Amino acid sequence: MVKVGVAGYGVIGQRLADGVTLQKDMKLVGIADLFPTLSIRALKERGMPYDLYLVEGADKSKFDALKIPVRGSFEDLVGKVDIMLDSAPGGVGIKNKVLYEKAGVPAVFQGGEKNSVADVFFHGYANYEKGLGAKYLKLTSCNTTGLIRSVDCLDREFGIDRVAITIIRRVADPGDYHRGLTNALQIDRAPSHQAVDLMTIMPHVQATGILVHTPVTHGHIITVVAHGKAGKKITRDMALEAFKAHDRIRVVTIDDGFLGNASFFRYARDLGNPRGDMYEIGLWEDSIVESGEDIMYAVNIPQESVTIPETMDAIRASLKMQGDSASGTAETNRYLGLGKWK
Amino acid sequence: MVKVGVAGYGVIGQRLADGVTLQKDMKLVGIADLFPTLSIRALKERGMPYDLYLVEGADKSKFDALKIPVRGSFEDLVGKVDIMLDSAPGGVGIKNKVLYEKAGVPAVFQGGEKNSVADVFFHGYANYEKGLGAKYLKLTSCNTTGLIRSVDCLDREFGIDRVAITIIRRVADPGDYHRGLTNALQIDRAPSHQAVDLMTIMPHVQATGILVHTPVTHGHIITVVAHGKAGKKITRDMALEAFKAHDRIRVVTIDDGFLGNASFFRYARDLGNPRGDMYEIGLWEDSIVESGEDIMYAVNIPQESVTIPETMDAIRASLKMQGDSASGTAETNRYLGLGKWK
Amino acid sequence: MVKVGVAGYGVIGQRLADGVTLQKDMKLVGIADLFPTLSIRALKERGMPYDLYLVEGADKSKFDALKIPVRGSFEDLVGKVDIMLDSAPGGVGIKNKVLYEKAGVPAVFQGGEKNSVADVFFHGYANYEKGLGAKYLKLTSCNTTGLIRSVDCLDREFGIDRVAITIIRRVADPGDYHRGLTNALQIDRAPSHQAVDLMTIMPHVQATGILVHTPVTHGHIITVVAHGKAGKKITRDMALEAFKAHDRIRVVTIDDGFLGNASFFRYARDLGNPRGDMYEIGLWEDSIVESGEDIMYAVNIPQESVTIPETMDAIRASLKMQGDSASGTAETNRYLGLGKWK
Amino acid sequence: MVKVGVAGYGVIGQRLADGVTLQKDMKLVGIADLFPTLSIRALKERGMPYDLYLVEGADKSKFDALKIPVRGSFEDLVGKVDIMLDSAPGGVGIKNKVLYEKAGVPAVFQGGEKNSVADVFFHGYANYEKGLGAKYLKLTSCNTTGLIRSVDCLDREFGIDRVAITIIRRVADPGDYHRGLTNALQIDRAPSHQAVDLMTIMPHVQATGILVHTPVTHGHIITVVAHGKAGKKITRDMALEAFKAHDRIRVVTIDDGFLGNASFFRYARDLGNPRGDMYEIGLWEDSIVESGEDIMYAVNIPQESVTIPETMDAIRASLKMQGDSASGTAETNRYLGLGKWK
Repeated sequence: MVKVGVAGYGVIGQRLADGVTLQKDMKLVGIADLFPTLSIRALKERGMPYDLYLVEGADKSKFDALKIPVRGSFEDLVGKVDIMLDSAPGGVGIKNKVLYEKAGVPAVFQGGEKNSVADVFFHGYANYEKGLGAKYLKLTSCNTTGLIRSVDCLDREFGIDRVAITIIRRVADPGDYHRGLTNALQIDRAPSHQAVDLMTIMPHVQATGILVHTPVTHGHIITVVAHGKAGKKITRDMALEAFKAHDRIRVVTIDDGFLGNASFFRYARDLGNPRGDMYEIGLWEDSIVESGEDIMYAVNIPQESVTIPETMDAIRASLKMQGDSASGTAETNRYLGLGKWK
Repeated sequence: MVKVGVAGYGVIGQRLADGVTLQKDMKLVGIADLFPTLSIRALKERGMPYDLYLVEGADKSKFDALKIPVRGSFEDLVGKVDIMLDSAPGGVGIKNKVLYEKAGVPAVFQGGEKNSVADVFFHGYANYEKGLGAKYLKLTSCNTTGLIRSVDCLDREFGIDRVAITIIRRVADPGDYHRGLTNALQIDRAPSHQAVDLMTIMPHVQATGILVHTPVTHGHIITVVAHGKAGKKITRDMALEAFKAHDRIRVVTIDDGFLGNASFFRYARDLGNPRGDMYEIGLWEDSIVESGEDIMYAVNIPQESVTIPETMDAIRASLKMQGDSASGTAETNRYLGLGKWK
Repeated sequence: MVKVGVAGYGVIGQRLADGVTLQKDMKLVGIADLFPTLSIRALKERGMPYDLYLVEGADKSKFDALKIPVRGSFEDLVGKVDIMLDSAPGGVGIKNKVLYEKAGVPAVFQGGEKNSVADVFFHGYANYEKGLGAKYLKLTSCNTTGLIRSVDCLDREFGIDRVAITIIRRVADPGDYHRGLTNALQIDRAPSHQAVDLMTIMPHVQATGILVHTPVTHGHIITVVAHGKAGKKITRDMALEAFKAHDRIRVVTIDDGFLGNASFFRYARDLGNPRGDMYEIGLWEDSIVESGEDIMYAVNIPQESVTIPETMDAIRASLKMQGDSASGTAETNRYLGLGKWK
Repeated sequence: MVKVGVAGYGVIGQRLADGVTLQKDMKLVGIADLFPTLSIRALKERGMPYDLYLVEGADKSKFDALKIPVRGSFEDLVGKVDIMLDSAPGGVGIKNKVLYEKAGVPAVFQGGEKNSVADVFFHGYANYEKGLGAKYLKLTSCNTTGLIRSVDCLDREFGIDRVAITIIRRVADPGDYHRGLTNALQIDRAPSHQAVDLMTIMPHVQATGILVHTPVTHGHIITVVAHGKAGKKITRDMALEAFKAHDRIRVVTIDDGFLGNASFFRYARDLGNPRGDMYEIGLWEDSIVESGEDIMYAVNIPQESVTIPETMDAIRASLKMQGDSASGTAETNRYLGLGKWK
């Protein structure tokens, strides 16, 4: 049983903790945070299924006042685990790394951190092997993780040499008050970092892209224009078959009721998934179209939970629990129930 | 064990089914619907925890094509239960009633139906006794249900003779595509039906109100200006203490992180509540203010789930499972875990 | 001809400049700003109808690069005018005041500044006489300005001793990217500052209120519960007649097509008003309802332009152009064409 | 002087009327509508700058009650003009056509009508010559009009043989209450009609596309991936220079303050343009990126007003006022002041 700790119990941290708990070959030792946030209060109301450790600067008296039991310090937690998952706010991970290094503990960082924090910029499908035995890994961001799942899927099967993406980005998570957009679309300087990141992970693919922020909270939608390697034609049917075979891609149709990003959230809630989370990206069958040598399609990215499976993969790669992408991702998928619904 | 059926497996119907399942003195026999909606597909993916019955006009071949097992007809379901919960779309309940009458089965209708469908317009706290033994009851709508909880709370304790309410209404549920509003507030003709409905349930209170629709999906916010009976002063502390003692009211503060309606949704998700549902209304301690003889405050109404407890109360009243409001609501609260968090 | 300058050419400053231009007994000398913002670029594209002066810290080379003519420094402007209208960002006005004092020039500040910046906290209808000859005045904020128009209207006619307000606040202006809210309502600690401000301007009225932010850009909606002085009954018809007689209140109905705040914006655009601005508050005839001794109604506040008329009034009061509220506001109304539409 | 009538005085009809008024070689005879809408009421408040005619089914007594002068019937209007601009709601134009045919009057229909209503599906730049002398023309929709401007611009200069577009569609206009979307993105079946329409107008280009609706009101954003004819490389600089030379394309940068679609609306309001309208599409210099043989960029489409210039072009083509695209569009641009701002 691999012992795992989670630093930062926010939107991602909570889901990492859940994800680890579902892996039968891992054990969640505890989580660390700074303030008695709503998420920590909810943990208390749930009866503390996980132990809580406090990071430096935390005021323990605030936790005591709320009768929230504290198990120890961040250092205590780091001392008890085989690997840390760091989902602290962007820029904090690099500071936490000092502790991990001191304790000789490997760590997986999330997308908010700079690439330089890690030895390997990681994706479970596209470059698992690079992560084997690596001490510090950084996951791709939510958009890039989902995007690469779909591009890697086509690339493995048919070869891809060029993609142009349009990211229609949800601007905030449900419950966010610290950021937001009201009745406006906002454009970023091109190329988007997701296109650049894709090229880092998949260096044989040329990528560019434009990102537009939209005032919604449920899932990014990305359109992808992909060019078959050396102009090789990928038909709609070829793409569809490949996507349907992937365990982390849900192929759906508009006729079935999947009208947009909010339908996926609704469906995940109706499934009874904790928090209405979904690990799979959605892919609309009705969006796949051909244009000359290009194939175009649209995917839905559940931003809060999409990186959880690839983070589990990262643990498997770093600790050499499985030796290649196929067996590593299969193990993660098995414990998360991915592909089961087909 | 009281046997219960649910007609209409939409936003409310799903939650009624969950609610009944939690009542240890009730048993959910099954649910009835017309189409293989996303919610029915999710039920299938979950392994059919409830049996499905088809209402007239349903095309069974569509369910067969999706391998969704069908247990029987709507009439079959009605024939097996002690009481029906009808959450069919507005206007359909009155048609379903013909079947209920034919089978001699009592029923509880939801707020979308006309008052004339029922013998008693019902609220678990404010008029439980009127529902005792009644054959057809209609629940107040989500806004009215939550509003009355808070007004009844003050009225019981101190006496209220007048309220003026402002309803800041969420315009759609998460996942809705059939209705919506974009960058606009929309006003309804005053007085709002919620004020009128309150007077039907609590005839000794004079009520008026204005309703404004807002383009959000997470919870209505209602402000209430209440006037103590015969001008009796209700202080902020008196009101606060009464609200805190109520099992279906969560008193929170902005400082704790409850910044608005989205915070409640976030908190309920973090609690791991199925679908991120919450049965309690929220009440901001920092919103309670006095103005002369008036007391003013704001509540948050989780529109998807707020009527579930009062519907359980309605079953208890109709079937005389408990003889008065205090014992009826206490039993519902016990099974739903309400008040436990305090 | 009274010579006027405007400091800060943002959302409010532009409209102040327009407003002064329409007053036939005033002359706009120029406007002052810091950066070549979109608004300054638009001024250039329009052919510089107003002269531009640069405040301290401005980089003139940036204006030169865009061929935007600069007429002089902020001090130059202040030296040429009889009065300054200060619509600089909140907190900057107090610094600007040093210059005004040095030059012996009176000034009118907008609502973003602290009350202490001014000798008189001013509203054209409710306390014009207090502003007579005052050197430094501060306007009420947009919400308070519109709110007081309606409360003062009833108070003059019938007497009001108590109000409880609910402010449904638009969270950003069209074009704002520096603030916003996405799919959330946000509540402020009660009582809202608008209720407190109303009591400062109208000390004989007791006021409280709750404010809720909503993710829209077109106009605040405020509901008002008003109590007749000493319990005197104000009927719906009495209130309606008084509102209809007011030159800065547009009484409309839902049936006519005024469904919400966005309808006013649409109507003002269709009128050909520059920027789609409207000086009047809107008041829904269908929102006026009685509840015992209370009268309740809803108004629409066009946040970008509503303070312009009262700011013109402030110039008139400060410079004693007219000696009382009736004649001062009448002159402003005449030049702005207010009341003409009736 | 060419005499022009406008049928349907809604969002588009009002702007067509304004556009015709600005053409010094045309005269607006009047407009026709059915109900005293807010737009008609605004026309009345403005003093009836245009004459009003009533279409069949209109209830004249409603106009009389509001003292809105009526000049005659729709047939009267058609009898007085050289050409009709039909901006009636989708599906009504085909019925109006019977009247136009009876009177022997040519007409230009807007994008909401079916293609079969017209002899020629028209764009002022891309196929002006096909419209020469044609009796019935139909304009491309707002998205397609703006899209084609940019694609035609590159095609003329360098040759384009393939485009893949992503349309990030604003879902409603400011003031709309009859449609809307709340906190959701909605996807349409691919390929989008705009891609198909582009191929009808520019048959030598292969096009596909995906459309996603977003809950905003200010301007669509379209990303375009364009492939040089026969793989000819179009560099960023080549594209930029071509776009900058176009009179109906405004090239802007994020650094200048054009952060998204709402910035264009803000800028047009600040310019004092009636209703905050803009005839040009916006094109972000910072969005232009190369990817192999492809060039990618993003444009902003001001949906309410973008088709006005091309509709003026259509009048010119139909009545042979100018004999080719270059001279026809130049004349329109001159009267609308397009290109002047450079």
